[in-house]
Amino acid sequence: MAEKIVVIGGNAAGLTAASRAKRVDPRLDVTVVEKSPHISYSTCGIPYYLGKVVTEDALVSYTPESFEKERGIKVHSHTQIAEVSPSRKRVTGKRVDTGERVEFPYDRLLIATGVRPRIPDIPGTDLANVFTLTNLQDAIRINAALGSARKVVIIGAGYVGLELAECLQSTGKEVRIFEREPQVLPSIDRDMAQIIEYELDRFGVKVSVSARVLALVGHEGRVNGVKAAAGLGIEPADLVLLDTGVEPNIAVARDAGITIGLTGAISVDSCMETSLPGIYAAGNCAETFCTIRRRPVLNYVGTTAAKQGRVAGENMAARRVKFAGAIGTSVLKVFGLAVARTGLSSQEAAAESMPVVSARIEALDRAGYYPGAGKLWVKLIVERESRKLVGAQVIGYGDASKRIDVAAAAITSGMRVEDMAQLDLAYSPPYGSLWDPLHVAAQAVLRKL
Amino acid sequence: MAEKIVVIGGNAAGLTAASRAKRVDPRLDVTVVEKSPHISYSTCGIPYYLGKVVTEDALVSYTPESFEKERGIKVHSHTQIAEVSPSRKRVTGKRVDTGERVEFPYDRLLIATGVRPRIPDIPGTDLANVFTLTNLQDAIRINAALGSARKVVIIGAGYVGLELAECLQSTGKEVRIFEREPQVLPSIDRDMAQIIEYELDRFGVKVSVSARVLALVGHEGRVNGVKAAAGLGIEPADLVLLDTGVEPNIAVARDAGITIGLTGAISVDSCMETSLPGIYAAGNCAETFCTIRRRPVLNYVGTTAAKQGRVAGENMAARRVKFAGAIGTSVLKVFGLAVARTGLSSQEAAAESMPVVSARIEALDRAGYYPGAGKLWVKLIVERESRKLVGAQVIGYGDASKRIDVAAAAITSGMRVEDMAQLDLAYSPPYGSLWDPLHVAAQAVLRKL
Repeated sequence: MAEKIVVIGGNAAGLTAASRAKRVDPRLDVTVVEKSPHISYSTCGIPYYLGKVVTEDALVSYTPESFEKERGIKVHSHTQIAEVSPSRKRVTGKRVDTGERVEFPYDRLLIATGVRPRIPDIPGTDLANVFTLTNLQDAIRINAALGSARKVVIIGAGYVGLELAECLQSTGKEVRIFEREPQVLPSIDRDMAQIIEYELDRFGVKVSVSARVLALVGHEGRVNGVKAAAGLGIEPADLVLLDTGVEPNIAVARDAGITIGLTGAISVDSCMETSLPGIYAAGNCAETFCTIRRRPVLNYVGTTAAKQGRVAGENMAARRVKFAGAIGTSVLKVFGLAVARTGLSSQEAAAESMPVVSARIEALDRAGYYPGAGKLWVKLIVERESRKLVGAQVIGYGDASKRIDVAAAAITSGMRVEDMAQLDLAYSPPYGSLWDPLHVAAQAVLRKL
Repeated sequence: MAEKIVVIGGNAAGLTAASRAKRVDPRLDVTVVEKSPHISYSTCGIPYYLGKVVTEDALVSYTPESFEKERGIKVHSHTQIAEVSPSRKRVTGKRVDTGERVEFPYDRLLIATGVRPRIPDIPGTDLANVFTLTNLQDAIRINAALGSARKVVIIGAGYVGLELAECLQSTGKEVRIFEREPQVLPSIDRDMAQIIEYELDRFGVKVSVSARVLALVGHEGRVNGVKAAAGLGIEPADLVLLDTGVEPNIAVARDAGITIGLTGAISVDSCMETSLPGIYAAGNCAETFCTIRRRPVLNYVGTTAAKQGRVAGENMAARRVKFAGAIGTSVLKVFGLAVARTGLSSQEAAAESMPVVSARIEALDRAGYYPGAGKLWVKLIVERESRKLVGAQVIGYGDASKRIDVAAAAITSGMRVEDMAQLDLAYSPPYGSLWDPLHVAAQAVLRKL
């Protein structure tokens, strides 16, 4: 009989793993179990769905039926797994729509249960029109509620909060952000975050940083305001979005006796196998090996989830492939700005007690005389002793993601800043400058070393 | 008395070197000697000047006077150096406008004499309205002649030929290209060049490859046609542009007893010093160390010239800095297409007897559902034994230069293709895909290894 692969979770990591395992060994009997009605949609595209840039249909690559048909993989949506029994090699749970009990035997299992939102411990989060956003179901509910909302308050200025600010303001909503930290997007340095704050202001999004929200207030069970500390008063709100952090969904893994790492996510080896042989974990519920810090960290980006899923899938199909690790590369759009980062921020380097030297420069993304040239701010962070690049942040009206990807390749390879200063990059007036902003930034770091 | 630095050549390499030397040691007495009337202009921007995208003024960063004033460096334009005398440590020549003899003593000398066009050995190249294009003077002459020209024939489909084809066709000229090789842009692989040929055709530029031009024909001393072999007949032409190759300007260096390399360019060490101590060479007249082939090669790109100039300038100011070498990264725009390459092409790898495996894929440059997604073709070339990336070519309607710069960083670092397949690159729907085209191409190569 065919060996059975069961995958818990039908998004980036889970579906990539399932597809990869089946592709590598078509004899495998592969089953995906997903608690929501949807699989295979672009989580990263959801803000653009709410911003009416893309339709719901366009976000979804496969329905459970089309995925099953095209890939030969069974999909059980609406199905929540409550228990993994490693000794009996089966998972059990129920259909969330019918309540029917289900049980799936497995030879190898992947846990790709993702994350769940962290709800702040303040009154009023249970009021109607207060939302978190981690999946398409959330998005559909928010979309329905947005119709009659004019004033939207976003609590938390992380990736999702900032993308939503742009997308909702662009559809005519009045958007207000409260952020607890002294800056937006705490994963980048404060001097870079200020550029984003300026851009939000330029587009009419009011942002309060260092702003503690005390309560959500409402009328007849529906939110109508946000009460913030320290003279900010009550901000009227027809709808409130909470971007106040997420945490890995590890209950099923923990209850099965699988080791949970110090980070709070599921501990895995380089093959994405957990402490229990034959049980793998991938995606946001699993730890990610950071190749700079040389230890596992939390990582909530879809690209890493997909790569981990691919590695897990290969290994479940009995190949030996290793996950290379990640360095925290990401990019987001905030109105006209692209905001990209990779590696360690100055603050993250400090937390590792790593002495670094950094420099920030401004430059144009292409020849200044060529139409459409945009300004970029580039910050490079270099380990003082080794002179190796360990972090980069690029924000700008021009091509920021390009420079961050070059920096990501350099960091991954252990490139020293003097080699970055002379790196042979492409130039033509429509696409770049004789000296790329990365060269200029590397030269600025060299002057400080 | 202040030490004297003399620089022959006032473009990318020469001016960068002069500026750098003066910056590092402001006490230096720095002189730049340039045979043309212009210094400090963007050679790469010239096609866009002819295409009326940018003005002549915008191309020029400094006049001789403004450069002298701002940088404290003496500039002698219109001045051609005829002889370098290493024993007397001086260079001699004359003003090309007045015929006046000049002589400059030096303590350290930089030769940055660039290239000159190679004129094909066919009748008619001396007719009026037949041009080559290597500097701003050429461009100004071409611009004046273009006014009354309707039909333009370009002989040679290299970088300049293709950029001119776009720029002139866009201003309403009828453009025809003859290329001797069986493809346009011989520095990329033929399967990639075909994409460019399709694009030229789509925009109405007629291209004949494997086309030998026998003669330029004229009437009353002015060109009016191009005679090509093998049934192509005589193509009417009001103006002919020759993009038939260049060669390093080495006469002055050779006559002074400086070693010329096997490539035909001036031989230099990693400090850009020639065989004669105290005499440096940089830019297109000098050899460039290729870090993949591990030997000197010719290199005609401005980015490398500027980097070599910077290194030469530092060393002339008595620092010790080494040129890191180059890998042949470049990009050009051909109508809607960006065409980028780095490292070795398949043909170049074959010439090195290097066994390689390559794969070409098609992908979108960002999430397919996001407005503006463009198609890219990505080809990666990997050394079979080491599995290291040695070459990449990216052509497309999307962001090609971004991917080529990432590949350039990877090649420079000796990255293996399996690490490229998992590289942590930035993703957000407006800027990329969950799996970058580079990942997809690396996976395609891995399937063949």
